[in-house]
Amino acid sequence: MLLTERGDKPEKDRGGSKLPSFLLRAVIYSNHQLKIIDQRLLPVRVRYIRLHNASETARAIKSLAVRGAPNIGVAAAYGLAVEAFRLHDARLRFRLCRAAKMIGQARPTAVNLKWAVQRIRKVIKESGPDPNGLRANVQNEAQRIESEEIANSRAIARYGARLITKDAGILTICNTGALAAPGLGTALGVVFQSYLEGKRPHVYACETRPLLQGARLTASELVRAGIAATLIVDSAAATVMEKCNIVIVGADRIAANGDTANKVGTRMLAVLAREWHKPFYVVAPTTSFDIGCARGDDIVIEERSDKEVRSLKGIRVAPDAIPVFNPAFDITFARYITGFVTEHGLVVRPFLRNIRRLMHDS
Amino acid sequence: MLLTERGDKPEKDRGGSKLPSFLLRAVIYSNHQLKIIDQRLLPVRVRYIRLHNASETARAIKSLAVRGAPNIGVAAAYGLAVEAFRLHDARLRFRLCRAAKMIGQARPTAVNLKWAVQRIRKVIKESGPDPNGLRANVQNEAQRIESEEIANSRAIARYGARLITKDAGILTICNTGALAAPGLGTALGVVFQSYLEGKRPHVYACETRPLLQGARLTASELVRAGIAATLIVDSAAATVMEKCNIVIVGADRIAANGDTANKVGTRMLAVLAREWHKPFYVVAPTTSFDIGCARGDDIVIEERSDKEVRSLKGIRVAPDAIPVFNPAFDITFARYITGFVTEHGLVVRPFLRNIRRLMHDS
Repeated sequence: MLLTERGDKPEKDRGGSKLPSFLLRAVIYSNHQLKIIDQRLLPVRVRYIRLHNASETARAIKSLAVRGAPNIGVAAAYGLAVEAFRLHDARLRFRLCRAAKMIGQARPTAVNLKWAVQRIRKVIKESGPDPNGLRANVQNEAQRIESEEIANSRAIARYGARLITKDAGILTICNTGALAAPGLGTALGVVFQSYLEGKRPHVYACETRPLLQGARLTASELVRAGIAATLIVDSAAATVMEKCNIVIVGADRIAANGDTANKVGTRMLAVLAREWHKPFYVVAPTTSFDIGCARGDDIVIEERSDKEVRSLKGIRVAPDAIPVFNPAFDITFARYITGFVTEHGLVVRPFLRNIRRLMHDS
Repeated sequence: MLLTERGDKPEKDRGGSKLPSFLLRAVIYSNHQLKIIDQRLLPVRVRYIRLHNASETARAIKSLAVRGAPNIGVAAAYGLAVEAFRLHDARLRFRLCRAAKMIGQARPTAVNLKWAVQRIRKVIKESGPDPNGLRANVQNEAQRIESEEIANSRAIARYGARLITKDAGILTICNTGALAAPGLGTALGVVFQSYLEGKRPHVYACETRPLLQGARLTASELVRAGIAATLIVDSAAATVMEKCNIVIVGADRIAANGDTANKVGTRMLAVLAREWHKPFYVVAPTTSFDIGCARGDDIVIEERSDKEVRSLKGIRVAPDAIPVFNPAFDITFARYITGFVTEHGLVVRPFLRNIRRLMHDS
C-alpha cells in the first residue's frame, strides 16, 4: 500500500498559517482518501499507507501504525469519512454507526478516540435522510476535528514555550510531536515552538520501551528539526535529571482531579522530577481531559501483548516461559504534576476546580 | 570455541556443600583450562566458550560475554592462571604483571576486578624464582578467590533471606544470580535461598536496558529455578512498586559512605522505593566495597557504545544522527539505601562508621 516516500506537503496552509517544513504529517485526508505514515517502520522508512475503510483504520490504530492520542482521534474521524463514501446508500446510517462503535473500541485508554467518534456519531444521527448529505457532513466534521486540533496544537505550543528558558534542558518520554498530534504536536510541539522563537533547548529523549517511540519517532523529529537532543534508555532518566530544567509529557487521558494516564514511564519521570525539584508539566489539548472520570483509578489501562517485551522485530530477548506484564500506560497522580498546558493556557492548582472551569469555558 | 551446550556440573561440591541443580555456572576452571558461558547468547543458547589467554579473557569481560562484578573478578583471576601456564619461563613474572595490568583495565566501574587482579599481582610479586611455583601460586590464588566468593555468596544469601517474607513481592534489576557471581549470586541469590527455605517469593524483573540482562539472564535463571516471576520494562517499575514488599539489587562498587554504583536504573528504583515506603537493600560481598572511594562522585561510571541503544542485534531502532548517552551504571546515593547485605551480615546506618567497621573486621 505504498503511496509515496514523502506524502507530506509542509507548505500547505493548515489551520491559519504555515507549519514548519521539518514536520512530518502523520495523517492526510484528501479527495475522500485517507493515508497515514506507517509509524511502525520509522526511523528506517517514511512510508505512507492508504486506509480504505473503517476496519483498516481500526487495525492501524490497534497496531500503532497511527498513534498519539490526538492523531488517533483524527484518524478515526477520517476513517469514518472514508467508510461513509465507501458504503452504499442502503442502511448507510446504521452501518456507519456500527463502524463508529467498532473504531471507538480500537484502543481503550486515549479519550480523544472516544471523543472524536462521539462527535461523528452525533453528526450521523442529526443528518437528514439524504445519503450524500450524510457523507458530506461526516467528512466536514472530521475535517473540523483536524482543524481544531491543529489550532489547539499551535495555541498549546505558544503557551508552553513560555515555560521554556533560553537554553533549557528538557526531559520527555514517548512521542508527542507531529507524529502524535495534528499540527506541531503536544509536548514536543512546545519544544518546536520554543526553537522557532529562537531558543536553543536540549532535549533528553527517553527511548520509551517497549515500542521505542522515543528512539524511533521523537529522535527522528528532533533530528529533522535540527534541535539538539540526546537519546537515553528510560532508566537513565534519573541520571540526566540534574541536567534538565523541566519535564514535559503528553497525555492519553486526564481525569477530573488531574490524575493523568500517559505512556508507561511517565509516573517514574514525575517522581524523579519531584525528587530533583524540577517542574513537571502535562501538555495536552482539552480533548484529552475526561471530567467524566473522577480520578486515575477509574481509567482503563491498556495491557498489550507480551510479545512487545519478549522480542524485538522477531528477535527473542527473553525466555518463552517467563510471564510478562506489559501495561501501555501508567497513571501519574495529580500531586506530582506542576500544571497542564492546554490551548486555553496553563491550568494550575487546585486542579479539580480549574479543570472543571477549563472544560466549562471551552 | 564451542565446548558443550551444558558445561555445568551442578552436583559438584563447590564451597562446602552442593549448590542447587537449577543454577548455571558462568565460569569454570579445571585442568588449567578456563571456560565461560557466553552470556551474550542467552536466553537463546547456553554455549560455553574457552578463553585461552589473558587477552581473550579481557575481551570477554569488555564485551560482557562474562559479567557481574564478582564473576568478573573470578574470571580475571583465572584468566591470569591460564596465562601463567601458557607463557614460557622467560620473563614470566614481567609478562604476567603486564597481563594483569591489561586485564585490570577491561572495565572501570566494578571494583571486584581491580581487587582480584591486585591479589594475583601480589602473589606474582611474592613468589620465588621457580616458574612452576609461580604458576601454581597464581592458580591457587585464583581458586581461593572463587572459593571465597562462593562461600560469601552462601552467607549473603542466608542473611538476605531473613529479609524476605513468605510471599514477598521482590523488585530487582539486571542480573545478580549465578551468572553474575560465583555460587548463588548476590541479590538473586537471596531469592534462591528464600525459595530453598520454603518461601514463595514473586520476582518482578526489570528487563534492564540496553543489554537486557534482566530479560535474558534473570528471567532465564528464575524460570530454571521454578520461581514465580514477571518480566517488565524498566519504566513499569513505578507501576508494580505497590505490589512489591522489597527492592533488592547488586552492586558494582560501594563507596565508603554507602553511595553505590550499580546498573543504570538502580537509582530510579531507589527513588521509587522511598516514594512507596519500601525497603531498598544492596546485596554484595565485601569485595564490592571500596573504602578508598569516599563517595559516589569519585566512582568512574563506564560509558558504553551508542550502538547498544541505537540498535538491537543489528536492527536499527533510532536515527543515526541522534547522539546517545549510554552510561552502564548510575550512583544510588546512600540516603536512599535501607541497608547492605554482606557475607558478614546486615550493614545498617550510620553507613560510614559501619562500613569502615565491616572492612576492618573482614
